[in-house]
Amino acid sequence: MARIVQKYGGTSVGSVERIKHVASRIQKAQVEGNELVVVVSAMGKSTDGLVRLAGEITASPSKREMDMLLTTGEQVTISLLTMALHELGLEATSLTGWQAGMETEASHGNARISHINTDRIEEELSKGKVVIVAGFQGICGTEITTLGRGGSDTTAVALAAALKAERCDIYTDVTGVFTTDPRYVKQARKLHSISYDEMLEMANLGAGVLHPRAVEFAKNYDVPLMVASSMEEVEGTMIEEEVTMEQNLIVRGIAFENDVTKVTVKGLPNRLNTLSRLFSTLSEHKVNVDIIIQNQYDADHVNISFSITQSSLKETLAILQEAQEELQFTDIYFEEELAKVSIVGSGMVSNPGVAAKMFEVLAENEVFVKMVSTSEIKVSVVVDEADMVLAVEMLHAAFQLAEEVEEAEEVATLS
Amino acid sequence: MARIVQKYGGTSVGSVERIKHVASRIQKAQVEGNELVVVVSAMGKSTDGLVRLAGEITASPSKREMDMLLTTGEQVTISLLTMALHELGLEATSLTGWQAGMETEASHGNARISHINTDRIEEELSKGKVVIVAGFQGICGTEITTLGRGGSDTTAVALAAALKAERCDIYTDVTGVFTTDPRYVKQARKLHSISYDEMLEMANLGAGVLHPRAVEFAKNYDVPLMVASSMEEVEGTMIEEEVTMEQNLIVRGIAFENDVTKVTVKGLPNRLNTLSRLFSTLSEHKVNVDIIIQNQYDADHVNISFSITQSSLKETLAILQEAQEELQFTDIYFEEELAKVSIVGSGMVSNPGVAAKMFEVLAENEVFVKMVSTSEIKVSVVVDEADMVLAVEMLHAAFQLAEEVEEAEEVATLS
Repeated sequence: MARIVQKYGGTSVGSVERIKHVASRIQKAQVEGNELVVVVSAMGKSTDGLVRLAGEITASPSKREMDMLLTTGEQVTISLLTMALHELGLEATSLTGWQAGMETEASHGNARISHINTDRIEEELSKGKVVIVAGFQGICGTEITTLGRGGSDTTAVALAAALKAERCDIYTDVTGVFTTDPRYVKQARKLHSISYDEMLEMANLGAGVLHPRAVEFAKNYDVPLMVASSMEEVEGTMIEEEVTMEQNLIVRGIAFENDVTKVTVKGLPNRLNTLSRLFSTLSEHKVNVDIIIQNQYDADHVNISFSITQSSLKETLAILQEAQEELQFTDIYFEEELAKVSIVGSGMVSNPGVAAKMFEVLAENEVFVKMVSTSEIKVSVVVDEADMVLAVEMLHAAFQLAEEVEEAEEVATLS
Repeated sequence: MARIVQKYGGTSVGSVERIKHVASRIQKAQVEGNELVVVVSAMGKSTDGLVRLAGEITASPSKREMDMLLTTGEQVTISLLTMALHELGLEATSLTGWQAGMETEASHGNARISHINTDRIEEELSKGKVVIVAGFQGICGTEITTLGRGGSDTTAVALAAALKAERCDIYTDVTGVFTTDPRYVKQARKLHSISYDEMLEMANLGAGVLHPRAVEFAKNYDVPLMVASSMEEVEGTMIEEEVTMEQNLIVRGIAFENDVTKVTVKGLPNRLNTLSRLFSTLSEHKVNVDIIIQNQYDADHVNISFSITQSSLKETLAILQEAQEELQFTDIYFEEELAKVSIVGSGMVSNPGVAAKMFEVLAENEVFVKMVSTSEIKVSVVVDEADMVLAVEMLHAAFQLAEEVEEAEEVATLS
């Protein structure tokens, strides 16, 4: 008997019909002899409805009261899904975050899980029940808290770790993790498996299929994850540490995003604390910076470029102008309508030629690279937004991502 | 500084605008120097919406899961109302039933309050906060329970008792308790005050303004109740034990309801356990019986008549037919389209002529009385439904209920 944690997102439980469908999938997994804990999100757009109600009352709702309000969403789903399971003749019980022992830090809106007291869940499982747990929510003392974005994924992975589950299955509205976004590149191929680190870097692939925080949690606690469709009965993608044939490939996938803006601050004094002062100023105002490049142009001065989202530009410029005297720079330049394209793969670390090949492909296609950033398993470039899809298609082809790799020999020639 | 518990029902918090209005009323009461605990119901028709969702999934939802589902309704209201108070600059915090220490029996759907742990509420009050509590819900161990019909009224009264509040104000969509239902009788007059027992008997007056269970609770713990409008700034009705001028009146109000059916079981054996066996059989099947009349017609046999609601008739007949052999009766008769009209008043006990006057008024107006039932402060008659409104109007006039009584002398002549 395998113990499995399943998670169904908002779209998968977005209507009574879908809830019934999820119940039948749970029944199938139980009939196959599994012990099941199921984590669910709020139904479809119900969270948006609650947020809108709060917005009609105040422009700045208290985080505590937002947690109080939003946690009702999952509570509705767990009770309805449990009723649907009863209707199928299954023994099942629903548990809110606090009933499930999901203890968090004392923080509202974005709390981290501190401990899971699994006694109640174990008790219900020992009675042969399917346990339906409200995702996204926890408790600190007697205060209701929430885990923030991607919270239900995190609930599922954390429960799988605490319950020593064999696997955590994330059911969603896509069929798995793809080599790149299939909505843009029709050659995109679904991966059989992928490592945690690769998944983290590709978090934006496949329409935000899995929250990075949940992947990190799974990596830290060594929980095998499966991403699959809640609608179609097709094989999903496994996310795990073990190296399979496919994982020896150098490049595993291509992530990309548009709405990137590059900001360059010129003529900063070349001092030890220049970088820290500039980025502290921005982070104090909650501006998220992605790629950072420093360029010394004479002994006393540096230029610093960084990328931000289009929507942060106005605020960023205002913050910098405000701090011009303190930071002592001469000018600000910015360039809009850019995009970031990244190749991801854990085999890359031992293959210095991968970045070179990427630049070569881009140059051949006359795609001008404006910024570069590298990590052990990723190379990112910033290019014109107009070149984004072309760049992704060319890279997808050059790294042979559309081709299914099944022969060990073939893998050997690549690695 | 007076400690006051306020309660606002579903209609009073049925929209964002109404919630804002309730917030401004709470602010007004706080500015007047009161310490406030506010109990709220689910918004308007939101509970109906949840019940409908459950109904689309199963015809027989588990009571535990219904509690899980329905308690989200008040949780939404408490958070929104608290946000609205913050928006007005008030310190406020919301508490669910379990956070407020509302402990109940281990029963789902209709639990009784067993104990209130007021520590958390006292702590929040001591910080100068307005405490917003979810009505209708409680906790048993770590299980979420609900108090059943009229639950939010009961929450408010129970909290007022536990917190030793000076008063419990029930704000609703009517302006108080009337001598009879103003929708039917335009001479109906709002009462300044009424005793607990009278209110219990008149529970159906004024569109079900207050649940009998809450009135009983208030009586047992001596909590003064005020019923008033959440919309209009007009004086409400006080429900309390003290005898005021007005309470010396013999008849205080007239309650009535239609959809009454009379069932007569004929030829039952005249034994000690005949009544108990008949009504145990009915109560086992949850049939609510109102008036009961036993009539012995020879040494060995009795006829028993009782009244039920129209909707229980079919089931009642089936149960009786099923049990005919066991109960040993000969026939069943029933009469539909009847109504019950009751005169209520605590002065009645010392005035034997009141019932006689009631029968006289009915006879003069050719209203035929089919059943009679009396208590110390109430006389009820069952009449044809077609005569109901006429009977109420005639009795209202005969007992001078439309007339404001303010002079002590005038009272003296009546009592």
